[in-house]
Formats: sequence, structure tokens, C-alpha cells
Amino acid sequence: MNNFEEKLISKLDYLKDSTVKDAMIYALSGKGKRVRPRLLYDALKGFNCDFNVDNIAVAIEMIHTYSLVHDDLPAMDDDILRRGRNTCHIQFDEAIAILAGDALLTEAFNLVSRANLKSEKLVKIVRLMADFSGANGMIYGQEIDIKSEGKDSDFETLKTIHKYKTGALISLPLQIACVVSKNDELIPKFKQIGYKLGLAFQIQDDILDVTFTSEELGKSNSDLENQKATSVSVLGLEKATKLMEDLYSDIKSELENIDGFNPDLLLKLIDELTERRK
Amino acid sequence: MNNFEEKLISKLDYLKDSTVKDAMIYALSGKGKRVRPRLLYDALKGFNCDFNVDNIAVAIEMIHTYSLVHDDLPAMDDDILRRGRNTCHIQFDEAIAILAGDALLTEAFNLVSRANLKSEKLVKIVRLMADFSGANGMIYGQEIDIKSEGKDSDFETLKTIHKYKTGALISLPLQIACVVSKNDELIPKFKQIGYKLGLAFQIQDDILDVTFTSEELGKSNSDLENQKATSVSVLGLEKATKLMEDLYSDIKSELENIDGFNPDLLLKLIDELTERRK
Repeated sequence: MNNFEEKLISKLDYLKDSTVKDAMIYALSGKGKRVRPRLLYDALKGFNCDFNVDNIAVAIEMIHTYSLVHDDLPAMDDDILRRGRNTCHIQFDEAIAILAGDALLTEAFNLVSRANLKSEKLVKIVRLMADFSGANGMIYGQEIDIKSEGKDSDFETLKTIHKYKTGALISLPLQIACVVSKNDELIPKFKQIGYKLGLAFQIQDDILDVTFTSEELGKSNSDLENQKATSVSVLGLEKATKLMEDLYSDIKSELENIDGFNPDLLLKLIDELTERRK
Repeated sequence: MNNFEEKLISKLDYLKDSTVKDAMIYALSGKGKRVRPRLLYDALKGFNCDFNVDNIAVAIEMIHTYSLVHDDLPAMDDDILRRGRNTCHIQFDEAIAILAGDALLTEAFNLVSRANLKSEKLVKIVRLMADFSGANGMIYGQEIDIKSEGKDSDFETLKTIHKYKTGALISLPLQIACVVSKNDELIPKFKQIGYKLGLAFQIQDDILDVTFTSEELGKSNSDLENQKATSVSVLGLEKATKLMEDLYSDIKSELENIDGFNPDLLLKLIDELTERRK
């Protein structure tokens, strides 16, 4: 994804020089795994569709990044380390971090509106992006997450948090691939696969958090400090690992059984992410 | 605009119940003048166009409201009073206020994507909304504003702040009216009128701030507390008043000389706003 790293920054060339722009670029340049853009590219190739979706891929990563910048703020998770570097409000200041988050979110929609696809598709993509990142999606997950701090959450609550906070934005690129390739009837199917994948990723993160130090992971372990329940603390390491493995094999078999869809690239991506150590 | 007050809330019916939704509704229910939606409705009538733009009008007011919620945060202007009531982070808390602002911004784009207009127009509207509220627009103005605190800003700096921070979002509904009514060639003209109108409104606000107490105005006078230069502090009351009056008469004569546009409703709205005392 080296090429994507360049696009991620160069797609913002239309913006005036400003500290907010610097902070946007700083936040985007953290060493991310770019899971969401890769899901879009790989799902689209699975549909044998070669439309240029760079603007959409960058937009989704910008929405993910804005959510990290705002979640790290002192009033939220109060994290100082992210992807091995200072969080945005530490590197700049709180005001600039709030504005940079706002700008990443706003310009994500700008990039979608500038994408070279039919207007009908773009309107559907704007709506999906807003639905899954907004008050019925990712933001809803963040609210339940904040409220669960210091409480003994059961696994059902955790699943709800992960569904919205992580799953929504993992499921988004898969659904967008359906829209771009004119396979709208597969949106519900890919939405569900996305939710499962988001849950599997989250459990994997929880497992990594207890098996590696924050130095190794390159981020603060605020879940522990904020007394948040995790799938490991609720289910135990063994059960959590088993659930994660079941989810991954479930997802794989679902992907292999979709008519007209070649799952190879997505399967390879999932394998690669399953084997990751941070 | 009584009818609009109902629409402003009922347009959010598709959102799940949550504290963030409550905070969004709380922030939207403050007694606003609804200047931006009225500019859209009145400009559209001036083009003799009767398309339903309720979703767009509500979306613009949501973007304006999100900017107030975030600007009021402790890390920004640190205001506790807005439109005669607690600011959002005082009424709820900082985390919820950050999320409510994020959600107002996100759902604004959602409402546009759900508006009953041709997709080509909706894509143009999304782009205008993002351009004028994002890092090249309103957010840019907020950054310069924050940076100018405690400094002796000259009037040129103030004009730049007002152009982006206020003018961009005043000019937005006028430009959108051009798109909706298929008068795209008039966008540059209405953009300039919008910037002038924004400057006039801002000078008027500065004048009201020195002639009325914050109790009468229903908001904190954070400009004074944050040692921000204003048009009155820089130009003096007399010169500022003269400039404001010149701007208004300039805007009026421009509006009266646009082919195929009936300026009556906009002129009436401007007259009404000019005579406001808070």
C-alpha cells in the first residue's frame, strides 16, 4: 500500500496551507494498516470491477482517522500515544485536534463528491458513509463505549459496542464496493460480513493488548487504564481466541459462497491481518 | 419560521435514541435566527423555484450548530452560555458535546443525500457544503480566529476571519439556491454577496456586543474575555457602523440588479435582520 500512502496525502492538495491541514496530514501519516481502504480495493477487485475509487478509499481512511483523533482527546479516552507517536492533541493542541478531526470528516465527503463515478452512485455512497459513521453508526458505538467505562459490561454489551464502533466502518467499504460495482442486492450480505469481521478484529486487538506491552503495540493501553471491559476480560483468553477463530472461518466460508464474487484477495487480506502481531 | 423549528427536529427521527441525539436536539433547539435556512428559502423563491429543500435547509443549520457546539468547548472559546441557555458541554458533558458536533456534521450530509432532488444537484450541493464548511472555509476561519486571540489584529485580518468563519456559511445557502434552481452561472455572484452579508452581520454583532450586556444578548461575551479584536475595537463604533450600513446598501443594490431574480424576500429578510437588537 505504498502507493496509497502517497495518495492519502496528495488527495489533500486542494486545501490551503494551515495548521489544521498540517494536523490532518500528521494524523493520516501514522503507520496505519489501512484495513478499510484495502477492504474496498480488494472487494471491488473481487467483483472484477476496475473503477477508480481512490477518492472513496482515502475518504474512508479520513473518517477512521478523524474518529481516532477525537477519541484520543482528553475529554474522551485521553490517550497520548497512537501508532507509535504523539496523539494529535499532544503534537499540536486540543483546539487544533478538534478542528483537524472536523476537517477530516468534512473533507471526506468533499472527496466523495469529487470522485469520478456516476452521481447516482456518489449519492448512495454519501448516504452509506453518513449512516455508518454517524449517530446510528460509529458515533453510537463511541457513546455506548464511553458509558460502559468502569462498569461490568457483559459480552452482549461489548458486541453492541464493537458492532457500531468498529464493525460499522469495517462494513462500510464492503458495502460501497457493492454500490460501485452495481451489486446493490449484495449490500445486506456484505454488511453482515463486515460486522463479523469488525468483531473478529476487535477481539484480536483485545488479545494483542494482553499479550503485548503498549511499547510493542505503539499505542497506550487506555482500555486497561479506563477500566474498560474487553472480550478477554469478559470471556477469558481461551474462549476469546476460540470465538475469533470461529468468526474468521465463518467469514471465509461466507465469502467463498457468493455468486459472481472472487474472494481470493479478501481472503488473503484476512489471512494477513489474522497473522499480524500489532 | 415556526414550521421550520418542527422540521429541524423531526428530520432527525431516523436516528436511534441516544444521549448524543438528545444533545443534537438540545443544540438545535436554541433560539436561533435561522438566518442560513431563510437565505436558502428566500433566494430560491427569488428564482421562482419551488423544489422542496427542507433537508438542505436543515442540513445547513446543523452545520452551523455543530460549529457553535465545538467552538464553545473549553479548548476553544470556553463559553458557558449560548442563545440564553447552557452551552452543550455544560448541559451534557465535553465528550457528548464533541460527539454531538461530529454527529450534526455527519447527519447534515446524510440529509442532503436523502433530499428529493436530482443526483447531479445533490453531488454539487455536497461539494459546496464541504468546501464552505471545511478546511478551506469555516474551519480555516476558526483557526485564524483562535490564533488571533490576544493579538492586535488589523482590520484586514478581521475581514479574513469573518470571510471564512461567518461569510462562508452565509454564502453557502445562496450558492445552493443557484444549484437547485439551475442558475449555476450565478454562483460566483451570490458567493460574493454572501461574503459581504457575512461581514455586515459580523460587524453588526460586534456593535451589539458593545451596546448590550451579555444578559440582554443571551450569550457570553467571550470576544472581550478572550481579548479578541473586533471591528468596533479596531475601527471605532462610528466607522464600524458606517461600514456596516455601506455594506448593506451595496448588497441591496447588487441584489436588485440580477436578471431573472426577484430580490424582494431577501431584501425584506435583510431589513428585518438589520433592525434586530439581538
